[in-house]
Amino acid sequence: MKAEIISTGTELLLGKTLNTSVFYLTGQLSGMGIEVLFHTTVGDNKDRFLGVLRQALDRSGLIFLTGGLGPTADDLTKEITSFVLDLNMNFNQQSMDSIQRFFFTKHELPPGSEKQAFFPEGSKILPNDFGTAPGAMIQKDGKYCVFLPGPPAEMKPMFDHYVLPEILKITKDHARMHVRILKVFGLGESELERKLPDLMKQSSPFLTLIDKHTYMDLRISVRDRDETAALTALGQTEKVIRQRLGNHIFGIDEETHSQVVGGLLRQEKLTLATAESCSGGLLGGRITAEAGSSDYYLGGIVSYANSAKEGMLGVKTGSLMTFGAVSEEVAKEMADGARKVLSADLGLSITGIAGPGGGTEDKPVGLVYLALADAHGVRAERKLFSGNRESIRNMVVETALHMLRLYLLDRQ
Amino acid sequence: MKAEIISTGTELLLGKTLNTSVFYLTGQLSGMGIEVLFHTTVGDNKDRFLGVLRQALDRSGLIFLTGGLGPTADDLTKEITSFVLDLNMNFNQQSMDSIQRFFFTKHELPPGSEKQAFFPEGSKILPNDFGTAPGAMIQKDGKYCVFLPGPPAEMKPMFDHYVLPEILKITKDHARMHVRILKVFGLGESELERKLPDLMKQSSPFLTLIDKHTYMDLRISVRDRDETAALTALGQTEKVIRQRLGNHIFGIDEETHSQVVGGLLRQEKLTLATAESCSGGLLGGRITAEAGSSDYYLGGIVSYANSAKEGMLGVKTGSLMTFGAVSEEVAKEMADGARKVLSADLGLSITGIAGPGGGTEDKPVGLVYLALADAHGVRAERKLFSGNRESIRNMVVETALHMLRLYLLDRQ
Repeated sequence: MKAEIISTGTELLLGKTLNTSVFYLTGQLSGMGIEVLFHTTVGDNKDRFLGVLRQALDRSGLIFLTGGLGPTADDLTKEITSFVLDLNMNFNQQSMDSIQRFFFTKHELPPGSEKQAFFPEGSKILPNDFGTAPGAMIQKDGKYCVFLPGPPAEMKPMFDHYVLPEILKITKDHARMHVRILKVFGLGESELERKLPDLMKQSSPFLTLIDKHTYMDLRISVRDRDETAALTALGQTEKVIRQRLGNHIFGIDEETHSQVVGGLLRQEKLTLATAESCSGGLLGGRITAEAGSSDYYLGGIVSYANSAKEGMLGVKTGSLMTFGAVSEEVAKEMADGARKVLSADLGLSITGIAGPGGGTEDKPVGLVYLALADAHGVRAERKLFSGNRESIRNMVVETALHMLRLYLLDRQ
Repeated sequence: MKAEIISTGTELLLGKTLNTSVFYLTGQLSGMGIEVLFHTTVGDNKDRFLGVLRQALDRSGLIFLTGGLGPTADDLTKEITSFVLDLNMNFNQQSMDSIQRFFFTKHELPPGSEKQAFFPEGSKILPNDFGTAPGAMIQKDGKYCVFLPGPPAEMKPMFDHYVLPEILKITKDHARMHVRILKVFGLGESELERKLPDLMKQSSPFLTLIDKHTYMDLRISVRDRDETAALTALGQTEKVIRQRLGNHIFGIDEETHSQVVGGLLRQEKLTLATAESCSGGLLGGRITAEAGSSDYYLGGIVSYANSAKEGMLGVKTGSLMTFGAVSEEVAKEMADGARKVLSADLGLSITGIAGPGGGTEDKPVGLVYLALADAHGVRAERKLFSGNRESIRNMVVETALHMLRLYLLDRQ
């Protein structure tokens, strides 16, 4: 079933409101196997809205309309739809009662409230549990229109509680979409296409690459009425991809890098300490984004100044003088220092030049050393990242998590 | 001048990516007095994209296209536009050189890279300072098409540096929109409406409130052909708002909280150290987001485990036993400990319960103590935040910056 979403509201065309509703709806519909072909945003303008709606009815079977259900003269969604579908507008007393209940604390209803209780004839009315404007769903000539309120706080619960069950009825005989996402670190879009040329070309399971800046989402989808067949196909494709990408895959579906690393630390019963320079605490921040991270993360040192590297981590003055703060030696001493000073099993360190200033010919902006220390020794890696300060800092944190993950997998 | 925006990318129609680019572009264009009539999102599908582009060229003079500039066979924006406008695709050596420079550390270019150096004939090429895909701007028969990369981190700087000046040339005889944004911490939407009822009602200067989760943007806009008159009106409204909101306003336009605090530390010639528990390094991460923060930020301790609080910050075992890790006493000892151990002028600490677990009746999830130490003493604050782990952690970092800013303003 093909769907499209029409968002109305001049505020969306002034750049005042980020359209999170369309994002939510698309994700929900796509997860149900409904293909969303278009999003269109149009202002509270009669002629333009009319044009957009007619076009949508021409090309899609299921049309979601958000916004334009309010009490003001600007709010025209139901009125224009009834005009286009050639339906009368009928008054619904039950809706009027619940609008009145919503305002029970006030003496009088805001002007125009009655307007919200009128619907195109034949509508299934969708209650609004968090606002005054009810939604509605209407079918004519095999096409469905679903009216939803603009504010996400009203739209989302209405969709979840009242629309979703109706959509499931409509689509129950259709093939559902089954999806698995593999999270990939260290390979870009074109490298993935080179490693998976056959899979990228096939139509089922269908592969999509989504650039998440510091990693890639590799989305495998199968549309099938038979759930077992779909899951088998997903599993087989996943297996082939895992053989080719190996440890570049760090997680699946909603997993995060810090969650996976945390799980491995917990399994291995190891504790971790961090020492950060250019990332300024972001690595600790990422690791502690996971609830329960106190099981394995003891803490860290943000040794931004050289005096902090010496004083708190025991980095040797000689190393700083001879090799500089951004060097393999200092990274190693930082990692080992963090491990010792926090009495942790492992120490993980980052030192680099995030820019935009501070680069030299020998040590350009983007140069970073990472090190990982355990009781037996310290290993270090040198990386050169491109991008701005923010993207360099984000990439180095992701790379530190990757380095730690590979170390933990090696132990297993 | 009427504009519209076309976003291409199947990921947008899978609900995997929130379209922040369209929000940014719309706000910028609307601020320049350009009316944006439609947003359309369409997948990487040749026929549907062709239909959407033809329709846009029929009804608008200025068309922004984001996405579809990459190296893969899916990326079709320039190719389809040149087909629709009946233009040849020409190779541009200068763009090829900069793509090659972007990959200078690698031995070979990813396949398809050459494709990114082809443009419809007559294009003005827009350099991409943060990625490989250059943008372009083309005019034919009085209509403009602007090609921008999909990732916001590449799109925004390209728009700001290369597109905006061109648009200003096109629109130079129109009434321009002049905008000033006041950044407000600690007051919500309804509190702001209550404090500014008269200003919220007036149509010029026009006020908009935008909820940025941890703070609010208060956007003041004036549309006027006369720049001096517009700036005077903006200045007068700003003055009234500042009188009413006082220190709740932490910055203006693109300023960030960490940038403002950094500027004050630099002015006052003070150095800072941090001690973080539940925020796990996010405060250090925020402070060091500013280039040059090493001028005033010496470093910090992420004392996630109690042993780290004792060992690294000198928090007393007795305080931890008697009052618990989340207490005013421990916050104060952490702040003072950080200050001393890093030999900084100021110490700023955070200890709290970010949840979802770990709350009790006495100390619920969201309870946070912050403390600020200088040579003369330590002050602490108790806060109770609502929301999930992520929003609690973000709010506490913002609150710490606010606390430090008020302290620094008091000294002036």
